[in-house]
This record gives sequence, structure tokens and C-alpha cells, in this order.
Amino acid sequence: MMSNELKERLNLNTKAVEDLITELIQVKDDTGLLDVTKYSLLSGGKRIRPFIVLEAYRLFSDSENVTVALPFACALEMIHTYSLIHDDLPCMDNDDYRRGRLTSHKVFGEDKALLAGDTLLTYAFEVASNSKDLSANSSLSCIQALAKFAGYSGMAGGQMIDLDSEKNIKSLDQLLKMHSLKTSALIICALQLGYLCSVEAPNQKILSDLEKVGYNIGVAFQIVDDILDKTSNSTVLGKLAGSDEKNGKKTTLSYLSLKDAKDLVISLTNEAISIIKQYCKSDNCVLIDLFNYLIDREK
Amino acid sequence: MMSNELKERLNLNTKAVEDLITELIQVKDDTGLLDVTKYSLLSGGKRIRPFIVLEAYRLFSDSENVTVALPFACALEMIHTYSLIHDDLPCMDNDDYRRGRLTSHKVFGEDKALLAGDTLLTYAFEVASNSKDLSANSSLSCIQALAKFAGYSGMAGGQMIDLDSEKNIKSLDQLLKMHSLKTSALIICALQLGYLCSVEAPNQKILSDLEKVGYNIGVAFQIVDDILDKTSNSTVLGKLAGSDEKNGKKTTLSYLSLKDAKDLVISLTNEAISIIKQYCKSDNCVLIDLFNYLIDREK
Repeated sequence: MMSNELKERLNLNTKAVEDLITELIQVKDDTGLLDVTKYSLLSGGKRIRPFIVLEAYRLFSDSENVTVALPFACALEMIHTYSLIHDDLPCMDNDDYRRGRLTSHKVFGEDKALLAGDTLLTYAFEVASNSKDLSANSSLSCIQALAKFAGYSGMAGGQMIDLDSEKNIKSLDQLLKMHSLKTSALIICALQLGYLCSVEAPNQKILSDLEKVGYNIGVAFQIVDDILDKTSNSTVLGKLAGSDEKNGKKTTLSYLSLKDAKDLVISLTNEAISIIKQYCKSDNCVLIDLFNYLIDREK
Repeated sequence: MMSNELKERLNLNTKAVEDLITELIQVKDDTGLLDVTKYSLLSGGKRIRPFIVLEAYRLFSDSENVTVALPFACALEMIHTYSLIHDDLPCMDNDDYRRGRLTSHKVFGEDKALLAGDTLLTYAFEVASNSKDLSANSSLSCIQALAKFAGYSGMAGGQMIDLDSEKNIKSLDQLLKMHSLKTSALIICALQLGYLCSVEAPNQKILSDLEKVGYNIGVAFQIVDDILDKTSNSTVLGKLAGSDEKNGKKTTLSYLSLKDAKDLVISLTNEAISIIKQYCKSDNCVLIDLFNYLIDREK
């Protein structure tokens, strides 16, 4: 169950992120391209990645004011959204629905959906490079992180492994490697962005701690997805349940029993919590609440 | 005809750009994604955009050593290449051949070609943000330029107009507006990148002069393409001649006679040359040679 404090903070952060995203895509654009991106950007996502950016910033900064980190939270959400639009395309996963709504290409056509994804990826870097409240050095570090974790050595690389998954995934290790690229990469990025916005000279030990935390939380997130796909139903999920099995896709449950998969989720999460705890200012740490919630979620 | 000096400088710059690109995509990558990008990146393009970056740098810098500008030249070529891969996809222009070779999706499949395009766009920003030889401020200015001219208000915006061209293009002005976004945007970007790499505090008058030059050269380039599509043959072009007319596409020649179109190319180019001339160090200016060559090219 979600604690009241987490719920409140999620709502607060989501509003801040959606307000800035709305402002960013309401600039003058005669081509209609930003309108196409708007459909996907403002479709009620959970906003977990930008939430993590803002809360990681609060963890490491003396200030509670997240203005500095907000553009990077939005940039990361744009990159996440571009990846969903492209993943849904017919030549990729060919999904007609996401979050209970028609996917971008079903509404606007494949060509415009493709272009909207390209535009979001590009705009993410425009937004990140235009940040006025951060030093040029810190902005550059953030842009480096965005590009690295979204690119061939991060999310896109994981997607590539997934495309040839029958050839590439022959063991649990290989499956978890794919999950770490597809999902953990942007979680690590979120944590590091929050931290990088809070300091001029980043500490390597902290960056590597955050990498470990993000790795664990991302992989745990994917295992929970695998479990829900098998144990939940389409109404609760807002997408077709049981689709992994139907598509003959390898999941954690191809290698582990349900109990062992759940145990792995808990041990990954607990390790992440024990690392992040070192940096918490008090026992009330909303990032830890989030990590616990991600285990217990129903969709 | 191409002058010997231009030919020599084109070869020199192309080698420098291809050497760095080769180095950049030969980093460790277990996913095979960079190998897919390599097919398109090293396919013998004319390298006009990186050439302009390097020569604009030489124009404004005291140094003849282009090392500082080289990563940005490569980043821009990566963005150009991603746009070609995505434009060739079946849901866009559906082209099987480019530069006389099979297009990326014909060789690797649509899914991997899509992902390779995404990866190149992302990698461009990784390369630009990792430049070691430039101040953080100048690097940020370059990244801003790359994102702005590649995004909704630049190349991607032009592509969007093109997708609905039957609705959007009803006059020569609207056609030229599309060309300026689709083609001029990256030429302006190339000129400004070269300049931005050469100064700490960029001068707005110079930036706006370069915008005018890039606008003219990009539009002239597209008009020449329209002319060649009508007057040349497939063997010379390395792609299907006459395809615009066959596809019922509006081109400059839908609104102008062949003579008027050629005159427009000349007046646009001459105006660009008269502006760039102010900044040339001697009468021998290889950028001017390039602009003149772009009018006379046969493909």
C-alpha cells in the first residue's frame, strides 16, 4: 500500500513535472509536431522517473526547492515517453493500447508517431541544455548522463538485445542483463541526475552507490512486471495480461519459481534500501517508501 | 566543377570526420547496435555538413587545427544519418536504396533500423557533451544548436510538414519554408557550430548572418535537387530520377519554370556568398568554393 506521505509527494512532483511539460510543449509550433507528442506526454503515466530525479535532488541538496532539477526530470520523462512511442510501433511490439488508451501510431499514423518520438528525444536535450539555474559544468554532466543511459550502452542497447531475445536470452543472467539496460538504465539516470543537480563536484562513490541502487530497483521493477503479467488480469493492468507467455517471451518466471522470483525482488529492493539509507536525512525517506511501493503495486 | 583546393579540403575533412566516427563506433558494444549504425554512417556520404562545421571553425578561429570542432562535426553527421535512416523506413518514404546501396531496414530489418536511428541521435548528444577540448559554456551552446535545429523547430518540423504536404504545401513560399526546415536547419547548425567552437562569447550579428547564409544555401540545395530529379537520370543520381513527379510531389518546378528555378538558386547562392565573404580571411575561401560547387553538382 502507498503511504499517505508518498501519495502526497507523488501528486506534488507529478503536478510540478506536468506543469513544466505542458509549458514546454505549448510553445509556438506551426507544424503540429508538439501536439502529437502531447498526446503521449500527458497520458497519465506514473512519473516514477521524474519523481526519483526530484527526490534524489532533495536527498543531496540543502534546498527543498526543486526548480533546478525540474528541467532534467522533464527531459528524462520525455526520453522515457519517446521510447514508449517507438516501442509500440508495428515494427517493434505492435501494441494498440497503452495505459488503456490507443497508442500514438493508432491515433496519428506510424509516420507521425515515429517523428513524435524523434522529436521528444531531441527536445529532451534542448530542454536539458537550456536550463538556466544550473552551472554549465553540471548541465553538461546531466546531459552526459541522459545520453549515456538512453543510448547504446543503456536503454536502446537493452531494446536491441530484446529484439533478438530468442538468440540472446539463454539464461537468467542474460535476462537480467537485458532488464538492467532496458529499465535500470533510466532509473540510475534519474538518481544521478538528482544528485548531479545538487553538487558542483560529484563524488564517484555516491555515483556508483546510486548506480547500484538504480540497477536493483530497475531489475526488481521488471521482475514484478513479469509476475503481474502472469498473476494479474487485463482490467487491473490496463493492458493484456498473460501476453508474455502467449508471445513465447522469456521472463523471470521461465527460470525461477514464483516464490523465488518474489524473494529476488525483495532481496534486490532491500539491498537498494540499505544503500540509499546512508544518504537519508531522517527515517522518513520518501524514496524508500517508493521502492517498497514498487514491490507491492498491482499494475 | 570542383576546384582542386576544394577537392583536397573535402578529402582531408572527410578523412578526419570518418576517422573519428570510426573510433567512436568501435567502442565496446555487446548489443551489436553500433554495428548497425556503422553501415549507414560509413556509406560514403558527401559529408557536406561536417565539412561546413570544420571550415566555419577555420574561418573564425585563429587556429588551423580543427580538433576542437571535430566532435561536433561528427555529432551533426550522426544526426543527419539518423534522419536518413528514419526517412527511408516503410512508414515514411519507403526507400529501398540510398547512395546506390540497400537502405538500413532492407539489410537489418525495420526494428533494428529504427533503433539504430534512435541510437545515432542519442549518441550525437553523448559525443557533443563529452568534448574535452571546449569550455563547458561553448559545449552547451553547441548542444543547444544541435537540439534546436534537429528538433520540432528545425529538421523534424520540416519532415512533419512534408508528411502532410498535400495539405500544407499550396504555394512556393510554403514549399520553401519546408525546405528551410528540412535542409537549411542543419546547414545553419553546421555554420553556427563551427563559429561557436571558436569563441567564448558569441556575437549575435555573426550568428544571424550565418543563419541567413545557411538558409539560402539549404534552400538552394533543395531546389537543385528538384532540378536534378527532373533533368538527370538514375545512373548519375544513384537513386530513382523523376520520382518526385511520379509520386505527385510538389517541387520548386511545380511553381517555377526551369529557368526561374535556376535563377533563384543563383541569387540565393550569391547572396550567401556576399555575406560569408565579409568573414573570409583571403580571396581563397573554400566555403565559397563549396557553395559554388553545390549549384553545379550533378548528383
